[in-house]
Formats: sequence, C-alpha cells, structure tokens
Amino acid sequence: MIVSARLTFSAAHRLDNPKFDAEWNRRTFDKCNNPGGHGHNYILQVSVRGKIDPESGMVIDLAKLKEIMRERIVDRVDHRNLNADVDFLGGINPTAENLARAFWQQLAPAITQGSLYEIMLQETEKNSVVYRGEDEES
Amino acid sequence: MIVSARLTFSAAHRLDNPKFDAEWNRRTFDKCNNPGGHGHNYILQVSVRGKIDPESGMVIDLAKLKEIMRERIVDRVDHRNLNADVDFLGGINPTAENLARAFWQQLAPAITQGSLYEIMLQETEKNSVVYRGEDEES
Amino acid sequence: MIVSARLTFSAAHRLDNPKFDAEWNRRTFDKCNNPGGHGHNYILQVSVRGKIDPESGMVIDLAKLKEIMRERIVDRVDHRNLNADVDFLGGINPTAENLARAFWQQLAPAITQGSLYEIMLQETEKNSVVYRGEDEES
Amino acid sequence: MIVSARLTFSAAHRLDNPKFDAEWNRRTFDKCNNPGGHGHNYILQVSVRGKIDPESGMVIDLAKLKEIMRERIVDRVDHRNLNADVDFLGGINPTAENLARAFWQQLAPAITQGSLYEIMLQETEKNSVVYRGEDEES
Amino acid sequence: MIVSARLTFSAAHRLDNPKFDAEWNRRTFDKCNNPGGHGHNYILQVSVRGKIDPESGMVIDLAKLKEIMRERIVDRVDHRNLNADVDFLGGINPTAENLARAFWQQLAPAITQGSLYEIMLQETEKNSVVYRGEDEES
Amino acid sequence: MIVSARLTFSAAHRLDNPKFDAEWNRRTFDKCNNPGGHGHNYILQVSVRGKIDPESGMVIDLAKLKEIMRERIVDRVDHRNLNADVDFLGGINPTAENLARAFWQQLAPAITQGSLYEIMLQETEKNSVVYRGEDEES
Repeated sequence: MIVSARLTFSAAHRLDNPKFDAEWNRRTFDKCNNPGGHGHNYILQVSVRGKIDPESGMVIDLAKLKEIMRERIVDRVDHRNLNADVDFLGGINPTAENLARAFWQQLAPAITQGSLYEIMLQETEKNSVVYRGEDEES
Repeated sequence: MIVSARLTFSAAHRLDNPKFDAEWNRRTFDKCNNPGGHGHNYILQVSVRGKIDPESGMVIDLAKLKEIMRERIVDRVDHRNLNADVDFLGGINPTAENLARAFWQQLAPAITQGSLYEIMLQETEKNSVVYRGEDEES
Repeated sequence: MIVSARLTFSAAHRLDNPKFDAEWNRRTFDKCNNPGGHGHNYILQVSVRGKIDPESGMVIDLAKLKEIMRERIVDRVDHRNLNADVDFLGGINPTAENLARAFWQQLAPAITQGSLYEIMLQETEKNSVVYRGEDEES
Repeated sequence: MIVSARLTFSAAHRLDNPKFDAEWNRRTFDKCNNPGGHGHNYILQVSVRGKIDPESGMVIDLAKLKEIMRERIVDRVDHRNLNADVDFLGGINPTAENLARAFWQQLAPAITQGSLYEIMLQETEKNSVVYRGEDEES
Repeated sequence: MIVSARLTFSAAHRLDNPKFDAEWNRRTFDKCNNPGGHGHNYILQVSVRGKIDPESGMVIDLAKLKEIMRERIVDRVDHRNLNADVDFLGGINPTAENLARAFWQQLAPAITQGSLYEIMLQETEKNSVVYRGEDEES
Repeated sequence: MIVSARLTFSAAHRLDNPKFDAEWNRRTFDKCNNPGGHGHNYILQVSVRGKIDPESGMVIDLAKLKEIMRERIVDRVDHRNLNADVDFLGGINPTAENLARAFWQQLAPAITQGSLYEIMLQETEKNSVVYRGEDEES
C-alpha cells in the first residue's frame, strides 16, 4: 500500500553551474539562466510504502507525514530563493532533479512508519520529476 | 499496457476503532474522529493491465470498466455514510487504505479482460492512496 | 479591483426540511436526503472589492482575508457535520445556497478593507453557487 | 459575448515598498518580503467583450489575442524577476493588484476588435485578482 | 443567488464559412479550418439566477438542471460532429461563440425556476467564452 | 530518476475496425463509432528515465524533450483527424492504447539522453492509458 501527501510551496530559483562560463550556462539552461531568476508554485508529493497498521487502519498518518514535510522541507523553502536562502541546498544547482534528491535526503530518515517510496516534484503543469531513491551514491 | 478509468463519489465517514477508547481514537484520528463525521468528494481511479486486443484495439472497454465500477462500488457508496450504510464495508474503519483494499476485493473478481492492476483513491487534493493487491492476506 | 482567496474544507451534510414529511424530502432531495448523510470537499472562494491601497499595493492582504475566513468559517465547519455541529448553521438546511448566505453573514462584518463582493461555494466539480449579498432580507 | 484566453508564465518577485523602512515592509508583506524573493506560476486570463462578427463567428480570434498577450506581456515577464527585469514594471511593487493594472495598460490599446473587459491574474490556487479597468486614474 | 451546473462532452468540429472561399477560410481559421476537423473535450457550465426557495433551500435543483442540460444539449452533441450531426446547429459555423448562443436558445425556454443567467463554454484550458443572452437579435 | 513533460493537443477521431461489419463496430465501440467522429483535448505525458547529469543537474532538458514531442507527435496530430490525416497512424484504429503504442515508436529512437520510460495519454478526465514499451512485438 502506498500513501501520498501533497503540499505546495512558492519559491524563486535560477539554473546555473558556476563551474562553467556564462556562455555554457546560457546555452544549457536558456531562459532558466536569466540573471534575475524566476519562480514557481511547486507541488511536492511524498509517497510512503508500508503495510496497513491493523489498529489505525493507516500506513502512516498523513497528517503526521505533512508535519514532517512542513518541518523538513516546506517551511524552509516556501517564499525563499532556492539558490541563496536554504541551508540544505547550499552549492546545489536547483533543477527539479537535484531538488527531489535533496528533499529525499531530508525526508527519508524522518519516515519511521513504512518507508519513503517516492518523491514527485512538479515545477509547472508541463514539467515534473519522480525520484525513488535510486543512484544516491552516484 | 495499463488503462485507467476514473469516477467520483461523495460520501460521509468518521474514523474510529471501537476496540479502543475515546481518548485513543481522539489521539489517533484527531479531527477525523469528530462524532458527527465529515465527508469528501472521493476520486476513484481503477487501472487494468493487459495486452491490447488486436480486434478492438483496447485492453478493456473503459465504458465497461466504468459500468463495473458503478455497479460494484460507486452506486453503493455515493451519497452514503461509509460507516453505516454500505454492506461490504461492515466493521471496517473507513480510512482510505481500508477503503482501497475493500474496493479491490469487490472489483478484482469482476475484471475478466486483463487483470486489476491498481486502485488509486483520493480523499482530497492532499491525501491519496494507491493499492496494488499486495498483502491481502496479512 | 476584486481580490479573491480560496480555501477548502471537508464536511458531512444531509438535505432535509423537517417541516415536511419523509416522502416530500425524498422527492425533493433524492439521494441528498439519504439518512446517514454524505459529504464533500467544499471549495470556498471569497472576493473583496475595493481600491488599491497605494502604500501596500493591495486591496486587502489576502493572508489576512484567509485568517478571517479560517476563524469565521473554515475552522468551524471543517471536518464537521453541517447539520449538527455548527452553531451558526443551527436550523438551516445545508444546501449550497443556504450555506453561502450564512457564510456571507459571518464574513461581511469582518471585512473592513474594501467590502465583501462575492462568495463562491463549490460542492463538487459539477455543482457551485455564487452569492453577492442580494435578497438578504427576503 | 465575452471571450477569454488563458496563458501562464513563471516569474520571481518580492513585495517591498521602498518609501517605508524594513520593519514596515516586514510587517506589511511578511514572508512575501523575504529578501531573496520567491516566485509563482502565474495564470493570466484576458477577457474581451464584443459582438460576434457574423463572418468569422468570433468576437476576436483567440489565437490573435494570445499573440497580443505574448508580445505585450508574457514574453516580457516569463522567466524574469518582476522587480528588476521588466521595463514597464519599473518602480511598481509587484503585488497581483499592481500587476493586473499594469498589464491592463499594456493590453487595452492593442485590442481593436471588441474591447478589453477583464484581466484575471492568479498567483496561486489560493490567491487571485480580477481587474476591469476601474480607478485607473486614482 | 446564482447556481451553476457543469457537464462535459466530447465532439468534433471544423471552422469554416461556406460563403467565403478556401483561402479566406484558411486565413481566418488557420489550423481550425483543417479539412478533416479536430475536436475537444468541451466544458459546459450553465448558471441560473433566482431567489432561494424557502422550502427547498435551492434556487433550482441542480440535478434537474443537469437533466435539462443533458436532454437539450449534451445528449445531442456528445460524441458527435458539430458540423454535421446536430439538428439545432444546422448551418452554424461551430465557433465557441456560436455554440454558446445556440445552446442559450435551447436552454432558456426550459428553465422555469429562476432564469438562465450565463453559459460558459470552454473549448480548451486556454479558450473559453461566456454568454449572458445579449445581442440575440443582432 | 524519472522526468516528465506534458503537452496537449486537440484532435478528432472515430473508433472503427474495417475488418468487421457495421453492427460489430457499433456493438464494440458504441458512440465512439458514430460516423461523423468526435474529438478530445488529449494530454500527452512523456517520461524519460536516467541518471542526473552532474554538469547540468538534469536527466534530459525538458525543453528539448518537448521539442522532440512537438516535432514527432504534437505538430502532426494537433487539430487533425487521427483516422485520416496522420501518416504514421495509417491503418491504425485510433484507440488510446493504439495511439500510445504508435507514439512510443515515434519517440523512442529520438530520446538519446536517458531512455523513454513511459507514455501517458489521457483522452478525458475519466479515460487514460499508460504504456511502458511492453509487448511491442506481440
């Protein structure tokens, strides 16, 4: 059984890899590299997999899962600049892929009923990523 | 190939486990344990997996799948109280997890083209569960 | 300029007019009269009309409007039974129309920047009402 | 007859009125005043009112209206910082109200079939404004 | 008080005015003039304005309104070709504007509780029209 | 890591298998077999699975993926009749299942960063299919 909680946050970001020059960054990230940044209403959906607890009838209380999501992620990124304002994102180019992986690292240790199964992060109706914990070491 | 049909229904429910006392239920289910109950516009998405029939070009006719969903689930739960009014939910604490599992048991035997792959049940935009038939015996 | 804030709540209700007998109520409200009740994820959108304050650039701070909405409406109806649990709905048959009018009476006095322009209450994707304060005396 | 076209754009902004000190701005705009800014997926819906042209059966070709919207608004604000990067927003605190009014001034002269009726600007699912050209002089 | 019911239908159409030649039609309707036609999932929202009936607490029973909408509109246009298959659209170029006006003529006489206030017809998330009965004689 | 891009297109289609007679087609496809055809606003979501490129922080640039989707699919099916106007659909009964498989064949060779993981095609809010490349030979 997989249970999912969904929250939203609004943040600014700019895609840029400082190891490369401006021309490379422009070519690679196009308008997402505009110097003043831009922003999104992100949708974060966190899924936990486990067995149904026969007493509560729940895998994990989704109200508790949302508390964890708020404390570990949403309260730290909402109405922030993801390039500058978020400690656990320091030195990370805030693509959706990198954000999903960083969010996984924040959330996984905090999920103690069932286990973290999937993070879905949607930047816009057109763009989203799904991360299931693969490749963390790579 | 996985094909999915989606229907909605509106129902009342209250989370409560009569094996425990009021204080335990309050602590466990919080506002979902309020005595008068509350309700949701549930979204039920049922997915069937199978090969494409070369004659019809379909895995299963989604119109037929929706008929099955209406007959076995929606017509029995829509505009009902899930704690009191639904025979196949008798004695079940109507969490989304328990509902998804109970719906699976109603639907699986009726799917004869392809096989039931997944039930997604959404309580609100923030809360949903996915069930793929695991652990039924546990 | 019209500014709008949107919140959701989940509640149970049953349509019934105790001045009439069971047969009249059944004929009038059909499945909405089922004795155990049912429920919805309601969407409440409140609109305020006014001039833009030149200092803040806002008609009314939507964060403050949402505070008012939570205090006066959402915290009192969310996860409740609208027939039984809400003091300001006592004696009111909880149709969407009647709810919108009752919500207006709760909200209008509390809006002191601009004035309450419109309440939109959606029961389901298919059913909604809009109230602009007309006819309150009738 | 009112016809409407809807486009989206993603932008960063920060609410701040430089005529006031940091404390006033913090109190007035709260987290929307965070120094690094934040951002949104804005939804812009532009409505034009007029009679149906009997030859085309249209009030205004919505493809043409979207061209105007892209040229005058979307291409200039998408993936930009609304405080810093947009010429026609210079000196404007980018609240939704102020943006809607500024967009109106860009669009109204360009609508030559029918007339501009309404601009709806949505910042998030919870926050939106509607502007119909009132008060422009105030 | 305004109450609204929303239904959907799927139909094919092609924009073309036979009084003009192919080149005019191509220039005017562009890809909407492609000879094989195309199609949409239309959303039809019908709004009725009236006073709340004190006995039922409703302006008009939305279940009845949807019955009228199905009988007069949806059952006649759903899964049809709007250029060829719908008697009451004979000779009408099926732009959203012309459809909304034709739907109004079908619906208005059938609304006997309250009066028809507005028809909203959405072709896509980007394109919609609103008709309130103006100009019918023009 | 799975990344997904979502685009929409509007097209007409009619379900019919010319190897069978009219009565079989009517019985099998019901209103989807209506001779004049009907249409949908299709949603096409394409998912690519791969590792995050450490330089770009992306699996595949979603702007590039959308370019591929437009060139190979959307520009060829949008505002077309899927039974008659699309070369790569010649001889294919345009069920959602058959479309998804045909789209896969167009897209898979063009994805050179990561690999095509899944195609989701939604016909309406109620009907959708997911294809992951299984059974292509059958």
